[in-house]
Amino acid sequence: MSRTPDTWILTAQSPSRLGTVDVVTRYLFEQGCYVTQHHSFDDREAQRFFIRVEFQVPSDFNEGLFRVGLDLRFTPFDMTFELTPPGYRAKVAIMVSKADHCLNDLLYRQRIGQLPMDVVAVISNHPDLEPLAAWHGIPYHHFPLDPQDKPAQEARVWQVLQETGAELVILARYMQVLSPELCRRLDGWAINIHHSLLPGFKGARPYHQAYAKGVKLVGATAHYINNDLDEGPIIAQGVESVDHAHYAEDLVARGRDIECLTLARAVGYHLERRVFLNAGRTVVL
Amino acid sequence: MSRTPDTWILTAQSPSRLGTVDVVTRYLFEQGCYVTQHHSFDDREAQRFFIRVEFQVPSDFNEGLFRVGLDLRFTPFDMTFELTPPGYRAKVAIMVSKADHCLNDLLYRQRIGQLPMDVVAVISNHPDLEPLAAWHGIPYHHFPLDPQDKPAQEARVWQVLQETGAELVILARYMQVLSPELCRRLDGWAINIHHSLLPGFKGARPYHQAYAKGVKLVGATAHYINNDLDEGPIIAQGVESVDHAHYAEDLVARGRDIECLTLARAVGYHLERRVFLNAGRTVVL
Amino acid sequence: MSRTPDTWILTAQSPSRLGTVDVVTRYLFEQGCYVTQHHSFDDREAQRFFIRVEFQVPSDFNEGLFRVGLDLRFTPFDMTFELTPPGYRAKVAIMVSKADHCLNDLLYRQRIGQLPMDVVAVISNHPDLEPLAAWHGIPYHHFPLDPQDKPAQEARVWQVLQETGAELVILARYMQVLSPELCRRLDGWAINIHHSLLPGFKGARPYHQAYAKGVKLVGATAHYINNDLDEGPIIAQGVESVDHAHYAEDLVARGRDIECLTLARAVGYHLERRVFLNAGRTVVL
Amino acid sequence: MSRTPDTWILTAQSPSRLGTVDVVTRYLFEQGCYVTQHHSFDDREAQRFFIRVEFQVPSDFNEGLFRVGLDLRFTPFDMTFELTPPGYRAKVAIMVSKADHCLNDLLYRQRIGQLPMDVVAVISNHPDLEPLAAWHGIPYHHFPLDPQDKPAQEARVWQVLQETGAELVILARYMQVLSPELCRRLDGWAINIHHSLLPGFKGARPYHQAYAKGVKLVGATAHYINNDLDEGPIIAQGVESVDHAHYAEDLVARGRDIECLTLARAVGYHLERRVFLNAGRTVVL
Repeated sequence: MSRTPDTWILTAQSPSRLGTVDVVTRYLFEQGCYVTQHHSFDDREAQRFFIRVEFQVPSDFNEGLFRVGLDLRFTPFDMTFELTPPGYRAKVAIMVSKADHCLNDLLYRQRIGQLPMDVVAVISNHPDLEPLAAWHGIPYHHFPLDPQDKPAQEARVWQVLQETGAELVILARYMQVLSPELCRRLDGWAINIHHSLLPGFKGARPYHQAYAKGVKLVGATAHYINNDLDEGPIIAQGVESVDHAHYAEDLVARGRDIECLTLARAVGYHLERRVFLNAGRTVVL
Repeated sequence: MSRTPDTWILTAQSPSRLGTVDVVTRYLFEQGCYVTQHHSFDDREAQRFFIRVEFQVPSDFNEGLFRVGLDLRFTPFDMTFELTPPGYRAKVAIMVSKADHCLNDLLYRQRIGQLPMDVVAVISNHPDLEPLAAWHGIPYHHFPLDPQDKPAQEARVWQVLQETGAELVILARYMQVLSPELCRRLDGWAINIHHSLLPGFKGARPYHQAYAKGVKLVGATAHYINNDLDEGPIIAQGVESVDHAHYAEDLVARGRDIECLTLARAVGYHLERRVFLNAGRTVVL
Repeated sequence: MSRTPDTWILTAQSPSRLGTVDVVTRYLFEQGCYVTQHHSFDDREAQRFFIRVEFQVPSDFNEGLFRVGLDLRFTPFDMTFELTPPGYRAKVAIMVSKADHCLNDLLYRQRIGQLPMDVVAVISNHPDLEPLAAWHGIPYHHFPLDPQDKPAQEARVWQVLQETGAELVILARYMQVLSPELCRRLDGWAINIHHSLLPGFKGARPYHQAYAKGVKLVGATAHYINNDLDEGPIIAQGVESVDHAHYAEDLVARGRDIECLTLARAVGYHLERRVFLNAGRTVVL
Repeated sequence: MSRTPDTWILTAQSPSRLGTVDVVTRYLFEQGCYVTQHHSFDDREAQRFFIRVEFQVPSDFNEGLFRVGLDLRFTPFDMTFELTPPGYRAKVAIMVSKADHCLNDLLYRQRIGQLPMDVVAVISNHPDLEPLAAWHGIPYHHFPLDPQDKPAQEARVWQVLQETGAELVILARYMQVLSPELCRRLDGWAINIHHSLLPGFKGARPYHQAYAKGVKLVGATAHYINNDLDEGPIIAQGVESVDHAHYAEDLVARGRDIECLTLARAVGYHLERRVFLNAGRTVVL
């Protein structure tokens, strides 16, 4: 999937019903919008409709009026939408602990423009990755964890998210379990990378579990967090082959690349508005 | 990609122009058709529009009238279309020589219903694969090649294609170069499997070429045939890793699986109406 | 991995100890054997040594004497070995139910010589796949399952295995749970294909479980059976990407190819004497 | 492939001959060395023998005497060897132009210890990547190219290689053709990453060539440079799937990951002494 630059993105979803596609495409046509890519999917199990359109706008395009019109048309269909202008860069906060491979990878992709985002904060329970963030000119927030008072630390995290206006939180190997409270607040806009092919090897030290089982493939899963630890809707998964000569620590090393790639892919999908939540699963258009 | 059963498929293409999506979706809506999947792509290089829609029809649906209406709407857009009813099975002729792995694979997939096709003829320049065709109850045409009179053999091939009403020809490791004349006649409806990652290793004995070069990946390319040998529009490519311990004959063995899979994938795309010819390239929706 | 034809294969294993490699290679040298490939691995966790050597023998080679010598040398190292002459074809029994994709694939690979085996029996609890076995000239044993008397059916299975001298049993989508008794008897020489990436989705209907979880990859696992259902040592795993548009039944279809490939790969490894059991895991050289 | 830490590596090659394996393993045994991994391959086409052994040494191990003994034993076999102690880090020079993805990736892998190397110099014909090298504390040499006097620039490059004692040169998207003279000097110890699946798309702008051909896979090739541009022995190749919606510039972006991964893999193989030159091809053990 690649995105055509200089296009707007309209995404929408609604209950399944005759006319969902038409209400979108007709409005775009009437407004003089030129569709370059269009993808829609009607989930017959969930009875839900999903659509993503990339389009160019006429010279006299007025975003405000356009939105008003969308609202009018979509309301009868119970259709919610998101409209993203060309060149939009989402504000993103990244949470890390000590492992830096995913952070390094994400910051690199931001720097060269591959991921359309502005990283507004790196938040960690450890001080180690401050230099890396600093080199990219990004504020680093070190909030150590007091096991007696986790809520206090999470409150500081939440404050940064609020103050920076972060639209997406990336848990780039943040090695702490979030409280149900924080999970609920982040529902749908926080992406975690788990270093196994979920639902296999949930919980701690998945590579050591994988070694013990003698698997021949290790993998990584990028998913939205929700209340259920390591159970949120899956966005992307990647895999790497291993053999008997890989001890547990080799699996850890071996998994780094696939963790980076899988997380970056999921973040890219999210930023390009390709991902829709759908009853514990995702639709990726 | 998977196809929802019990849906019609409408595919169309035209020069790029404002309103191409709308003219399709509006008509479907007006006719009471329920869209389950919709995918369109506007190629900004080729300035050409491609669309594929899966939809269910109302109980009073009349295919004839529906087609008339499509014609009326699409003509101003210079838009050509193809309409495929649910359960449609294309008539397919398969051409082979002595290697049977692709034939075996294709017939198996037909038998279990994975490829929606009826194989109406197996045509070969050798008698070897007759039993395999016979077991599947498919007529086998053995047309030996007289090097002095290739046109005569090709005339017999053409006659079978005509008589059986074949809509697709699959060259499943047919080891003869077709004449330009026959290539022209088959343009756009004959799929060949070449046992290399085209454009690398064109021509004869690609695995031996690959061995000599010491490549670490071998592959296969399924493409429409055209006048230019091994140069037609690519539909699908697959790849398999190899190492120094694979001699040329090992590469031949190693490549069989990826040839079968790549050819089957391309044939599936074609039968599901996913493939569009686009100026020497393909769009696969 | 590819095997050089016309070579003998010597495999051996023993507790880790200084001199394990030397005792093998020195004997081969003294006997005038020419080593073409040699692979050994000393597992520092399990403290166990594994070796696989392919070699050519001198014209005056005497297998009996060679074995006697091996015994003498290896006994002090507690080393067990297996010696396989060139062109050896193992006797194999295949167990199936109604799904035939793996059976079709295995019989094809036997027929073209890709898997060095003689299928001596196809055993099933259903009559459906008899014609497929018959076409390949292989005896088909239909042993229906009386839920009240499973031991009786398994006794008949065991009898066939005994009478045919089967050295390997392949469970090619045999949809019955074997009794602990039969599992114990088959320990180390029966390969099962499970249609998920174990240890994820153990048990019944793994594709339906996978759909419910919204995974983006489905896979297959070939493993030796042991007492613990779906828990035996893993030999090979394969994976295929899927998306939101694949309903559970699409995953079933999608998984067929990867099941065939993964099972065939594992069987090939076993027949080429590449697989060693190692404390609930496998070493594949 | 993973390397056991705290092991020495012995690699050797010679013409094919009876006794090549034995002469290596017997000496190791006599010296009290404990073999943890052993891999040898005898190329029946090239009539050449290759071996790689990882082993631990006894407490009274004397490297100098060990080497003398190896020489004595190996000379009659015309066998050349390389002996690498545990923890050895090769001195590496990296050449770049403006694209920094491979440089960023290599420096990261050095920093976390995944690639056992010390980058002693980054050399470029452009000043752009100086900050990246500086952050990692690595000297940056900016040698602009005077098209009228390429030899002068290459002389400066050569001088840096000499002065730093570089043992490996990595061309990490260095966008200049090296002179035959420099190629000859770097023969066997300089690795280039070419952004296509060689031998397809040799020469300039391979992604644009790939777009024009409508390929469905793009790839990258890491190879030793030799006199023949883009024709040196291949070490590793990687591949990524693409579709019709990827314009040429999208392929460029899409290819970055696979270029990084393929180059890093090849460099890792080289540093772990896994790669042997073999008549225009490589053996990777």
